[in-house]
Amino acid sequence: MNFFKSQASLVFFMQAGFAMVCAGCVQKKNIQNSMLKNLLDACGAAIGFYAFGYAFAFGGSTRTGSPTTFIGNSNFFLMNLEENFVYKGIIPAESFWLFQFAFAATSATIVAGTLAERCQMSAYLAYSFLITSFIYPVIVHAVWSPNGFLSTDNADPLFGIGMIDFSGSGVVHTTGGITALIATRILGARRGRFHDGRGNKLPTPKKFVGHSASLQVLGTFILWFGWYGFNPGSVMFVSVTGYSHSASRAAVTTTLSAAAASVTALVANMIRTERLTGEAVYDLGYALNGALAGLVAVTAGCTVLETWVALIVGAIGGVLFYATSIGLEYFCLDDAVDAIPVHLTNGIWGCIAVGLMANPRYVVESLGLPPDSDRPAGWFYEWAQGSADARLLAAQIVGLLFIMAWSCALMYPFFTFIDFMGWFRSDSLEELVGLDVSYHGGDTTEDAANAEYIEAMKVKKSMERTGLFRRRKQTSLQDLEIDSFHGNANANGNNNLPAAGTEPYDTDP
Amino acid sequence: MNFFKSQASLVFFMQAGFAMVCAGCVQKKNIQNSMLKNLLDACGAAIGFYAFGYAFAFGGSTRTGSPTTFIGNSNFFLMNLEENFVYKGIIPAESFWLFQFAFAATSATIVAGTLAERCQMSAYLAYSFLITSFIYPVIVHAVWSPNGFLSTDNADPLFGIGMIDFSGSGVVHTTGGITALIATRILGARRGRFHDGRGNKLPTPKKFVGHSASLQVLGTFILWFGWYGFNPGSVMFVSVTGYSHSASRAAVTTTLSAAAASVTALVANMIRTERLTGEAVYDLGYALNGALAGLVAVTAGCTVLETWVALIVGAIGGVLFYATSIGLEYFCLDDAVDAIPVHLTNGIWGCIAVGLMANPRYVVESLGLPPDSDRPAGWFYEWAQGSADARLLAAQIVGLLFIMAWSCALMYPFFTFIDFMGWFRSDSLEELVGLDVSYHGGDTTEDAANAEYIEAMKVKKSMERTGLFRRRKQTSLQDLEIDSFHGNANANGNNNLPAAGTEPYDTDP
Amino acid sequence: MNFFKSQASLVFFMQAGFAMVCAGCVQKKNIQNSMLKNLLDACGAAIGFYAFGYAFAFGGSTRTGSPTTFIGNSNFFLMNLEENFVYKGIIPAESFWLFQFAFAATSATIVAGTLAERCQMSAYLAYSFLITSFIYPVIVHAVWSPNGFLSTDNADPLFGIGMIDFSGSGVVHTTGGITALIATRILGARRGRFHDGRGNKLPTPKKFVGHSASLQVLGTFILWFGWYGFNPGSVMFVSVTGYSHSASRAAVTTTLSAAAASVTALVANMIRTERLTGEAVYDLGYALNGALAGLVAVTAGCTVLETWVALIVGAIGGVLFYATSIGLEYFCLDDAVDAIPVHLTNGIWGCIAVGLMANPRYVVESLGLPPDSDRPAGWFYEWAQGSADARLLAAQIVGLLFIMAWSCALMYPFFTFIDFMGWFRSDSLEELVGLDVSYHGGDTTEDAANAEYIEAMKVKKSMERTGLFRRRKQTSLQDLEIDSFHGNANANGNNNLPAAGTEPYDTDP
Repeated sequence: MNFFKSQASLVFFMQAGFAMVCAGCVQKKNIQNSMLKNLLDACGAAIGFYAFGYAFAFGGSTRTGSPTTFIGNSNFFLMNLEENFVYKGIIPAESFWLFQFAFAATSATIVAGTLAERCQMSAYLAYSFLITSFIYPVIVHAVWSPNGFLSTDNADPLFGIGMIDFSGSGVVHTTGGITALIATRILGARRGRFHDGRGNKLPTPKKFVGHSASLQVLGTFILWFGWYGFNPGSVMFVSVTGYSHSASRAAVTTTLSAAAASVTALVANMIRTERLTGEAVYDLGYALNGALAGLVAVTAGCTVLETWVALIVGAIGGVLFYATSIGLEYFCLDDAVDAIPVHLTNGIWGCIAVGLMANPRYVVESLGLPPDSDRPAGWFYEWAQGSADARLLAAQIVGLLFIMAWSCALMYPFFTFIDFMGWFRSDSLEELVGLDVSYHGGDTTEDAANAEYIEAMKVKKSMERTGLFRRRKQTSLQDLEIDSFHGNANANGNNNLPAAGTEPYDTDP
Repeated sequence: MNFFKSQASLVFFMQAGFAMVCAGCVQKKNIQNSMLKNLLDACGAAIGFYAFGYAFAFGGSTRTGSPTTFIGNSNFFLMNLEENFVYKGIIPAESFWLFQFAFAATSATIVAGTLAERCQMSAYLAYSFLITSFIYPVIVHAVWSPNGFLSTDNADPLFGIGMIDFSGSGVVHTTGGITALIATRILGARRGRFHDGRGNKLPTPKKFVGHSASLQVLGTFILWFGWYGFNPGSVMFVSVTGYSHSASRAAVTTTLSAAAASVTALVANMIRTERLTGEAVYDLGYALNGALAGLVAVTAGCTVLETWVALIVGAIGGVLFYATSIGLEYFCLDDAVDAIPVHLTNGIWGCIAVGLMANPRYVVESLGLPPDSDRPAGWFYEWAQGSADARLLAAQIVGLLFIMAWSCALMYPFFTFIDFMGWFRSDSLEELVGLDVSYHGGDTTEDAANAEYIEAMKVKKSMERTGLFRRRKQTSLQDLEIDSFHGNANANGNNNLPAAGTEPYDTDP
Repeated sequence: MNFFKSQASLVFFMQAGFAMVCAGCVQKKNIQNSMLKNLLDACGAAIGFYAFGYAFAFGGSTRTGSPTTFIGNSNFFLMNLEENFVYKGIIPAESFWLFQFAFAATSATIVAGTLAERCQMSAYLAYSFLITSFIYPVIVHAVWSPNGFLSTDNADPLFGIGMIDFSGSGVVHTTGGITALIATRILGARRGRFHDGRGNKLPTPKKFVGHSASLQVLGTFILWFGWYGFNPGSVMFVSVTGYSHSASRAAVTTTLSAAAASVTALVANMIRTERLTGEAVYDLGYALNGALAGLVAVTAGCTVLETWVALIVGAIGGVLFYATSIGLEYFCLDDAVDAIPVHLTNGIWGCIAVGLMANPRYVVESLGLPPDSDRPAGWFYEWAQGSADARLLAAQIVGLLFIMAWSCALMYPFFTFIDFMGWFRSDSLEELVGLDVSYHGGDTTEDAANAEYIEAMKVKKSMERTGLFRRRKQTSLQDLEIDSFHGNANANGNNNLPAAGTEPYDTDP
């Protein structure tokens, strides 16, 4: 029991990991903004998941033969939590909440990274509350509550097995990842990432130099560490009945998958850069995100994969991550921390890998069934036994489709609406000077070249206070250059301002 | 038992959190100094609490009906630790020491932040040893040892209940906080914080730009993580008798209070800045310290508050924190990391909140008593039952008064004396060039503008080696400007030195 | 059982600690390189220890009376792990692997720090794989497998007792430390550390300014925290039979030794600087590494030393660390993070301290023997009992000699060979511009003065692509200065390039 609570704190600590990964990747001028979003994620998730989220996810769930429901309907504000707790007598209800809250916070945090450096605070807060208190809990209910239609604990599970997603490759990471994809599609890329100041496409996408490689490494290690709470912790429901080996195996598969994915992502980039430029580059960023990709990929099946299979799952995950990352750049989709290749691609891959490679014996063991039970396992194993039983694979795919369809159905209209109203994207000037100065009272003295942009931003801001529900429009940087900078440039000839064109983006690495 | 040791290591890890919060807040020129103080806190507390502290706090304590004592008197240097250990057979004595040592180190570290950037090393070492080996242990004995006069385990507890302070809102945080308040009152503000170089009061206090927002976030998350060891860990004394729910509830109340306080502190600042300047500022620092304030506030009552009450306690704690922070500035009391609003204000508020809102059932449960025992609970609950029994509230207030009176009685004379002798405050020149250069062989080449100040500081230092017990006097910066800088400025006309007046303070963000 | 897994994750987290210590110590221009090495250490160790390392270390080991073997021979790729697991029924085999893997990664990481800033990536990868998959496992087999000739669990242990090295002062730290010493001896010092650009010895060795003092502090605290997994975790083999006190005592001795060593290292440096320059310097770096030295020193005997003895062991360890650090500088051996004084010196000291000061009662207890068993203990205790039985001390010394001889025998030829082939040391130009730019596609725009060096490095690199197995030769910086910089300097007179001589080393702190 107490072990379970330790694991929950470990999962909470992943918030620090996500924050540090962000701190490592974003530009210095947006650090405070990114950090505050990470903090408010945790706080918002705590309050939202306390008030509504937990109730929608697990409220009223029972373990024995109750009907399938779409959503939970009790335990709002954790009222009467212990009376009708689904794992009563197995783990303390409050520890279970802590564990689940930490997962919910993770699903929201994933998006924070992708949208970094160009998203308004209020839009972020609204989205974050929505996902942790409604969208994500419905998915949790479907997959993890015994009353969910995808649950393996359902009285009549889908295709006789249900969706096996132990620690959330699908539930947590695919949900976060698909939301991030929709959001970045609507929000658009950071200025200067794919196009110059005149709107011409750059020959190669510009990489913004991150604030600190060491903090990104720290964040990755913290996440890896936290994953030892994430993955083995999820097994606790059954460990009480004696299946402690499942938890231990989860720790090993987690380790191996991360290691393999990190290496393959690094090597994939070395091969590609060697082909393109004749020189292999050992890119730290790809190795780090590769490790995270491997962790995400093994999350669904951490207890049902054999250790050598985990190595393969990770190795493929690393390559898939790298390919997606290149693909996103090709389609001009801007992901500030590569969260989509890590969480979406590998979330999907993790669920499918279970459908293909789940070991029959481990499936039975980790579901807490008697050893001689017969459940569908990975398709490859069924093949090896001369069967073509793809029921588990089918269940995994149905689960993934549900998760993605549900997330899209709510998130797409939401983001489209707030974008139309002008509440989503930061103003071009705010983005240019950095969100720290724009929203957070950041220090303005450090970079003198920025001073006049900041001035223009403040004038713009004071002029546009016209009421909450008016649509906000983006400042045209080109107009502004003529109005405010040109005149100035004429006046004192040899000024320090960046020249027109792409320059503004180049001055703030 | 082993769980308990895990929790103790988690509490130790909070040292890293405090260090990172400091690293985030102080200026770059004082980083090594702050970091070394944080490290030596841990080391000094280990040695001091090993040699004397534990003995004063728990030495000779027994659980059954022994008389009330003021101070412990055995187990110096942990001798014969296991023979007469108060929780014998419940937890290993050595693990208990580790847990308590980590708490002691925390109480000393709190002050480190407040005094940052202007305090001499030797003064700090003296104070740190004094608090961990004597002042703090006496308070621990009073509140947590069964022989203490405030203890709930006392044979005849104060007002029939004693002071409920589970994890130390009063014992740890109020002690550290009141000491920090006294110390900063005597030490004075950092130069340039409230007054310019000529001694004129600034229109608004200057905020020194911290070294790294990301490290402050990291530190806050580490502390939050560590608090899951701090709060639920303290329940371990009773968990053995089956009250595992208390520990789980502690984790939930901790989470909710931190989240609520972070949000209210952020919002309070947004409202105030909006009123003052017409624009709401999302200030990262207040959100971070707000979270810590919420954690401190819920520490006393983590196991006896209902979850929704924790939300309220946190929300109020965040506002109290913010108000105190503004109040300190008003009174020109300089707190480099806002430790006083976090630890003192919320330490007091946490203890009083228990007196007001402790749930009767949880009080009995977390004291390890039979369910039908009758103990005074929070005043509001007594009201609801038609009683006006404020005995618990009274006990809390008596406890707080004792803690503050005891700390003041020893600390005020101590700090006054070392300040009179000139051992407390760094020399004005040392402060100006930064303590890293002054005490720690820090790099002098980075900031060329500083070079001549450094030279002057070294000359001053070599001249004044006149013996340990002579009073040290502060360098007058104004005199120095005339002597050393003016002449120089005349000589080479266009020098790079900061001009006279407030400039020196502005050049080193 | 679950506790054991928590401890293993804690040991894994030490990878983050080592990374942060490195990040704190190396120069900014080599950060990505150092970070990637730390990450690949963990990944390489995971794969190597999974495939071969574990099999060599523990494969086929049994606990009861089996013959002594040199190396394990089953469980490659963890096949059939559970069937013939040495601690079957005591701890889950997979958790044991995780714990041991984390140790193996540590032994490789130690060397990463020493070689920082001047070692080629491929050499590092080769070395790292070799040590984790072969050299280190053989040592583990000898000391920790019941079939090892040095093991205390051997049916007929060496000198009737075997080598007591609970958590690896010898196995992990001496192995890593001696390898680091050999490697730095062959690799040579960083350019500009002991000699200027013309090859003249500098009057005092140049200290390169590290990237961030705060990250070094963070790393040290993470390591200290991780050590609570390292040391008490190792006791788990016996804790099942009721010796939970051993684990608790390990936590206390660990704390005290670290604290004492940090203080003595700090004070040793203060005394020396005071003698040399008349002013005592509180050096943060020595205090931090001193704490690590104390942790290493107490690792071998954490369960068999009394608490006050741990204080002495640590205090001596801190002084030994400092003396070795000064000694290395005297012999012009360059250790970028002082890993040799920390791990080698104190690894040896830790093992010898056990031979001198192991408490007889604790030896019996922590070996899991009946309380009245008779085993040789520390020499000083034997003396006190009127005996001169130095068998334990002898076993410790034999063990140390074996570890060092085995490591040297394999590592010396290996490093000599790759150095001869030109695969070991980075090219002088690569080192000058920083390894980030050279290998990792690092940002080249930040430091304009470096631009031409970088250009020269790229030309050199493109010219020398002549095949894998040709010996690579170092670029002569002096020749290059004449060829590429002199001409340039003539052309535009007032260029920004660093002048000839020692300058290049001075421009990149």
